[in-house]
Amino acid sequence: MASGSKLWGGRFVGDTDPIMEKFNASIAYDKRMWDADIRGSKAYAKALEKAKLVTAEEKDNILHGMDQVNTHAPELIGEPAGKLHTGRSRNDQVVTDMRLWLRDAISILKGNSLQLITTMVERAAVEIDVLFPGYTHMQRAQPIRWSHWILSHAVALSRDVEQLQEINRRVNVLPLGSGAIAGTPFNIDREMLRQELAFDDISINSMDATGQRDFIAEFLFWASLCLTHLSKMAEDLMLYSTKEFSFLTLSDAYSTGSSLMPQKKNADSLELIRSKAGRVFGRCAGFLMTLKGLPSTYNKDLQEDKEAMFDCFDTVHAVLQVTTGVVSTLKINPSVMEAALSPDMLATDLAYYLVRKGVPFRDAHGISGKAVFLAESKSIPLNQLTVEDLRTASPLFSSDVSAVWDYSSSVEQYSAPGGTAKSSVAAQVEYMRTWLKKQVQ
Amino acid sequence: MASGSKLWGGRFVGDTDPIMEKFNASIAYDKRMWDADIRGSKAYAKALEKAKLVTAEEKDNILHGMDQVNTHAPELIGEPAGKLHTGRSRNDQVVTDMRLWLRDAISILKGNSLQLITTMVERAAVEIDVLFPGYTHMQRAQPIRWSHWILSHAVALSRDVEQLQEINRRVNVLPLGSGAIAGTPFNIDREMLRQELAFDDISINSMDATGQRDFIAEFLFWASLCLTHLSKMAEDLMLYSTKEFSFLTLSDAYSTGSSLMPQKKNADSLELIRSKAGRVFGRCAGFLMTLKGLPSTYNKDLQEDKEAMFDCFDTVHAVLQVTTGVVSTLKINPSVMEAALSPDMLATDLAYYLVRKGVPFRDAHGISGKAVFLAESKSIPLNQLTVEDLRTASPLFSSDVSAVWDYSSSVEQYSAPGGTAKSSVAAQVEYMRTWLKKQVQ
Amino acid sequence: MASGSKLWGGRFVGDTDPIMEKFNASIAYDKRMWDADIRGSKAYAKALEKAKLVTAEEKDNILHGMDQVNTHAPELIGEPAGKLHTGRSRNDQVVTDMRLWLRDAISILKGNSLQLITTMVERAAVEIDVLFPGYTHMQRAQPIRWSHWILSHAVALSRDVEQLQEINRRVNVLPLGSGAIAGTPFNIDREMLRQELAFDDISINSMDATGQRDFIAEFLFWASLCLTHLSKMAEDLMLYSTKEFSFLTLSDAYSTGSSLMPQKKNADSLELIRSKAGRVFGRCAGFLMTLKGLPSTYNKDLQEDKEAMFDCFDTVHAVLQVTTGVVSTLKINPSVMEAALSPDMLATDLAYYLVRKGVPFRDAHGISGKAVFLAESKSIPLNQLTVEDLRTASPLFSSDVSAVWDYSSSVEQYSAPGGTAKSSVAAQVEYMRTWLKKQVQ
Amino acid sequence: MASGSKLWGGRFVGDTDPIMEKFNASIAYDKRMWDADIRGSKAYAKALEKAKLVTAEEKDNILHGMDQVNTHAPELIGEPAGKLHTGRSRNDQVVTDMRLWLRDAISILKGNSLQLITTMVERAAVEIDVLFPGYTHMQRAQPIRWSHWILSHAVALSRDVEQLQEINRRVNVLPLGSGAIAGTPFNIDREMLRQELAFDDISINSMDATGQRDFIAEFLFWASLCLTHLSKMAEDLMLYSTKEFSFLTLSDAYSTGSSLMPQKKNADSLELIRSKAGRVFGRCAGFLMTLKGLPSTYNKDLQEDKEAMFDCFDTVHAVLQVTTGVVSTLKINPSVMEAALSPDMLATDLAYYLVRKGVPFRDAHGISGKAVFLAESKSIPLNQLTVEDLRTASPLFSSDVSAVWDYSSSVEQYSAPGGTAKSSVAAQVEYMRTWLKKQVQ
Repeated sequence: MASGSKLWGGRFVGDTDPIMEKFNASIAYDKRMWDADIRGSKAYAKALEKAKLVTAEEKDNILHGMDQVNTHAPELIGEPAGKLHTGRSRNDQVVTDMRLWLRDAISILKGNSLQLITTMVERAAVEIDVLFPGYTHMQRAQPIRWSHWILSHAVALSRDVEQLQEINRRVNVLPLGSGAIAGTPFNIDREMLRQELAFDDISINSMDATGQRDFIAEFLFWASLCLTHLSKMAEDLMLYSTKEFSFLTLSDAYSTGSSLMPQKKNADSLELIRSKAGRVFGRCAGFLMTLKGLPSTYNKDLQEDKEAMFDCFDTVHAVLQVTTGVVSTLKINPSVMEAALSPDMLATDLAYYLVRKGVPFRDAHGISGKAVFLAESKSIPLNQLTVEDLRTASPLFSSDVSAVWDYSSSVEQYSAPGGTAKSSVAAQVEYMRTWLKKQVQ
Repeated sequence: MASGSKLWGGRFVGDTDPIMEKFNASIAYDKRMWDADIRGSKAYAKALEKAKLVTAEEKDNILHGMDQVNTHAPELIGEPAGKLHTGRSRNDQVVTDMRLWLRDAISILKGNSLQLITTMVERAAVEIDVLFPGYTHMQRAQPIRWSHWILSHAVALSRDVEQLQEINRRVNVLPLGSGAIAGTPFNIDREMLRQELAFDDISINSMDATGQRDFIAEFLFWASLCLTHLSKMAEDLMLYSTKEFSFLTLSDAYSTGSSLMPQKKNADSLELIRSKAGRVFGRCAGFLMTLKGLPSTYNKDLQEDKEAMFDCFDTVHAVLQVTTGVVSTLKINPSVMEAALSPDMLATDLAYYLVRKGVPFRDAHGISGKAVFLAESKSIPLNQLTVEDLRTASPLFSSDVSAVWDYSSSVEQYSAPGGTAKSSVAAQVEYMRTWLKKQVQ
Repeated sequence: MASGSKLWGGRFVGDTDPIMEKFNASIAYDKRMWDADIRGSKAYAKALEKAKLVTAEEKDNILHGMDQVNTHAPELIGEPAGKLHTGRSRNDQVVTDMRLWLRDAISILKGNSLQLITTMVERAAVEIDVLFPGYTHMQRAQPIRWSHWILSHAVALSRDVEQLQEINRRVNVLPLGSGAIAGTPFNIDREMLRQELAFDDISINSMDATGQRDFIAEFLFWASLCLTHLSKMAEDLMLYSTKEFSFLTLSDAYSTGSSLMPQKKNADSLELIRSKAGRVFGRCAGFLMTLKGLPSTYNKDLQEDKEAMFDCFDTVHAVLQVTTGVVSTLKINPSVMEAALSPDMLATDLAYYLVRKGVPFRDAHGISGKAVFLAESKSIPLNQLTVEDLRTASPLFSSDVSAVWDYSSSVEQYSAPGGTAKSSVAAQVEYMRTWLKKQVQ
Repeated sequence: MASGSKLWGGRFVGDTDPIMEKFNASIAYDKRMWDADIRGSKAYAKALEKAKLVTAEEKDNILHGMDQVNTHAPELIGEPAGKLHTGRSRNDQVVTDMRLWLRDAISILKGNSLQLITTMVERAAVEIDVLFPGYTHMQRAQPIRWSHWILSHAVALSRDVEQLQEINRRVNVLPLGSGAIAGTPFNIDREMLRQELAFDDISINSMDATGQRDFIAEFLFWASLCLTHLSKMAEDLMLYSTKEFSFLTLSDAYSTGSSLMPQKKNADSLELIRSKAGRVFGRCAGFLMTLKGLPSTYNKDLQEDKEAMFDCFDTVHAVLQVTTGVVSTLKINPSVMEAALSPDMLATDLAYYLVRKGVPFRDAHGISGKAVFLAESKSIPLNQLTVEDLRTASPLFSSDVSAVWDYSSSVEQYSAPGGTAKSSVAAQVEYMRTWLKKQVQ
């Protein structure tokens, strides 16, 4: 019976199964790597010439044909095209294309990240005098500078940039010349290929080089962590832009209305930013699950790598730019922000007042807690307790306690590196500016 | 300063940000739900008429316009189109579309699954007499029927079908008439909408109805578990089709060659089947991560639901069909399969021989183990030990032990329900045939 | 050279590697299934007697010994213990234990869920008259009943209960009598085992029965989706309990203070509830990744199933109870909630006013939008626009528009099933009470 | 009504809920960081002295008390203990402990990894002359050296070590002195703290320092990718140790028997190694899902970080050691390995023979394919085709083709860097030895 005939009533299958063909096809994503593939092939043609496997003329034909390939058909190359695969396999060819492509993509994402960080740092520099409540556990904690908040997110993104550059070092390694599994014969000069394609290093072992996709897995996780940072910032901004907080207003360019409710202005941009960390991590989880179930060397399962890589790049690329747009155009409402500061947020300062008078912090914390309770019982703000009231909690209180109730001087206490005092925040701005300069050198 | 202007050096942003527009757009996936959307809108037009919010004529205009909408423009409807959104929000409209779409998709996947199961069951019926090694821990364990192996995978798929139908009951619930969050005014008759659109039930609470995507999450996980089953089967088949096992050969329609190695025939179809469980689970993980971070009701983040749903449907739809093709066309090599049975796989039977003579199993296991060790020491197969040899392990061995060394009678021992005896396997075939008949009624 | 000796300088390895021993050990989790294991073994002893593999006296010894086994040593059983493993393998024994254990665990979780739902439904019944803002996109959308919000979460949990019962049907299937892979010989009566252990069904195929863990995967995903529901509710409650919203206050039993800030009262309980969906989904993702990479039948990798199962049970068990505590003790601040309603939330009602006067909704939405813009320009609430002001947007406005500005009558519009009108919410309460009664029958 | 009383029938809740208490407790994991916590506290006491917040005597009391704290109670410290929390919060304290702990853990894992890599490299050096089939797509591809296979896995692990060191740079940053959110007052000298605790850097922003857990997320992903490498190697080894392949035998120390089948010897160690990548990735996925849903700064949800960190360390720690044991004790069967080489694996070499005679590779591949087909038709091995047979495919074949059929010279072709020629593999061994030396400097 002919190959492909069916015995047990399955759907019809001839010599080829069109669903299988489609399933197997990689043309859609190969297209995006077209340019990388041509670069790789041109370098390989030169190596073939050096190994005397093609003549100088044949090489020139290949190079010329390759340059036309976007507009014309491959037949321009003629017979030498049949020599281009000498010693090269789809296994080392495709992974070379991916590394070339991803190297460029990483460079673009680095640029997007630096633009966003720059926007944040410069905004922090301008708005350094705005105070508002710092929250922990989503509850008002202590007064901080708005710029301190901005920088807390910029600092996280700067780690992302550093990690991305580390990943790039592992991306920028030449696998070409590994063949299908065993390596390449014919004295192909891998060092020359490396130089032609501007890779930093040459892969150490051909089986590893053709079968590993760690650099993709690392990139997908990087994208997940980076977007988790942006999701976290978007969550803060969404909270701050609720009616209840009213700390800031998004530009119309980043908001949309409701099909039903005429008054609604939704922060769609922030919700989209927030959502994409899930999407991208899904790609990471999915690819890692596929990877995890494999034996070594090339298996077709690895074909899942490309869509994951493209989708994560496209997503992070868009999210970084939209976030830059959001951050550069949102308007803060400093008066509302400062009005949200309340005396109970200075309860720690009240304890510190006592510490400065020699009370161990543990006790000072307890005394301040009593004062908070007293104010709540009296339904008055903490700063409206009289010195007499406070003395019921500790005899050390005296009239100089009034100096505690000043938000501006409160934040100025935190002058150690990393704190929210003006000098500390300004130092952070300078630190980040210096760091940014180093990144573009 | 105009809304949308930038103060801190971010990229240019005018009144609209083209990247944001693209980011926000859902047109690409909305298109796939076009037909569902028209069905929903037509039902809603009828409900509007019943609520006297449109006239009979206006309703007819809408219905007529909707029927043309695939080929012509929406302006065919004219002014009544402006009434179609009365009391309806994108929130309840889109989720209605998704439920209609997914209901159809589930029906298709059920059909694909049943076709695959049928193919497997009928193949099992035909090849019931073929024996081969059953493996545990990837090591030869006991002789079993090939059909027993086929059925073990068919049974898993039958659970998938049952679970899919349970999910469908939760999919097939009408959310239309929930508005954006609070419900619908104007006496829209939701029961009539339910009947028009053939839903089983009406959603209980409008906030839940517009904000939950549990039915999507359940579907994505279903797809993951179903493809995990097919990955498991593909892994077995890949093993069986290695040179070393040589139990079976895939049809050429489901294999491909190598660009480098002329002799290679790779089971690409199996590798693709194996890989897709990762992809689909990635969608599930990604969507759940997005869902998990949300407060209640509709948030734009939910827009991630559609691509995940479409991609998982497309993937499972293709994988089920390709698997049917693979299973219906692969050729087994019964002689190689039976030749792979070895006497040491009957060591349990040797212990059972002793159990039948009254030896407690724990002791019989130990004695049989000694016999295995003895045969290994002598470098002979277990069945070539003489009765004298065996008696050094236990005096209960006598010449009737020779009956143990028969693979056919070995499998016949396992005649309890679910076992690998011919009668048990035939009963499984009958059970599955009956089950299949029930599914299509 | 002796087995276990090392040739290449690895760490010392004798005949046993203590790290491997520990790695391999399952004693810690086996202990939790001790009771299930004894139940299974007792049933199996009876089946062995029926198959004449043990005598009545031996069976009694086993049963008696099993009853003592918690306090005394297994030697109480004596020689018959050696017979207990006849035809039984660790493979079918352990999976039987797991199914017995999980069946009980599911019953407990169902109870916990029903108690939480009951608490929610009864609270909704009592507080039905409290209005507050319904939010979409975290922005104020429309006035709704507080009870409508409660019920939106209760309804999600009721789906969880239904899904849990469906899973239970797939859990409650007897695998015992499947041996290691091929089935059981010796006429072990599986139907009798089923009855003894009160399973609903018998597994269909022995290879599937010993090698599948779908019921665990399903349970882990169920736990993930259930906790995603509770995370969503916790997120809402956390928002509502911020200073900025101040809609409700948690009981002290579910809050904790700060080590640094005396005034802080953190909603730790809500944060823990919110966090656990991640933990549990991690177990699901991890187990599925392990499952996905396997060929069929039993592989040791499956040993990951137990810790995942126990941890997810323990976590959901605690979260459900803590959530019940939180929900039953939190105090709402109805006056603050109602004060948060603002006239712009009635912009949809303003459009509906025009719809009732014959304006197509699309146009009415536009007119209402203009009114919103007008009020914003004048910096006055929407309801303080004069009729003249409104007429600049549409001549159809007249003095009866004042009736629109009533939150109580606004919510009463949504009287279709599932809406936020009092009658609809009361109907939801009744629906849920009836549903709850059916669950405990 | 008292706080904590229940109104709606929930389970009993008094002033404290014991389940909530247990839920909230972190004592179990805090204990593992005890030592790190004491180190951090001692450094902090010194900084307090420098800031004149404690006297020299008080500092000595604290240091002395801390040294006793493992055996005796904290009261040894006396009153100064109350001062230890001055300006310090649980938020910066705990994350300092975690970084100290993880820094040590990373150092241990680096050691375990280097030991495993050393074992592999030295084994590769010794067994460099063993040839066996290299597989792609789980099908025999080309002859390779066994040592080439070993090194392919060692190279992947060396990337893990490099990545681990990069992560360590981000772990080894001092957060102490960040307080709860705003920083630390009182001139606490953070630079002195850094030196005392041997951190490389000081955190830049206090909000980021207390609220970020990127270093944990990175570590969890590192563990996942590292174990994916070991899972891949285990999968290969499992395949190679099947009866069908019989390339190698595991030491008894890493195998276990079957409770039912006396002849079974299962490679449990390999299955456990393979399974753990799932477990560890589950921790990563779970923690990232928890992280993703959060706003910025400290939220109690972060408490999930510790169990994930400990479990991943413990798991990787054990897996690396067990793998070292397995790799250093397994025995290969060189004769079986070489016997598995078959002439069709030289079909690429046959094509290369033609390439050397000037045939373009594309054509040579086709001619070699014809020869493979011819041999299959004649049911003879490829190398038994006569020169006449071969000439039917191409006239260029002559008697020197016999030189192709030599596995030893076949592998020697792949002498480019990374290839499987003896010189290339030896160079890889040297490269790795040099790399290893650099790691321990």
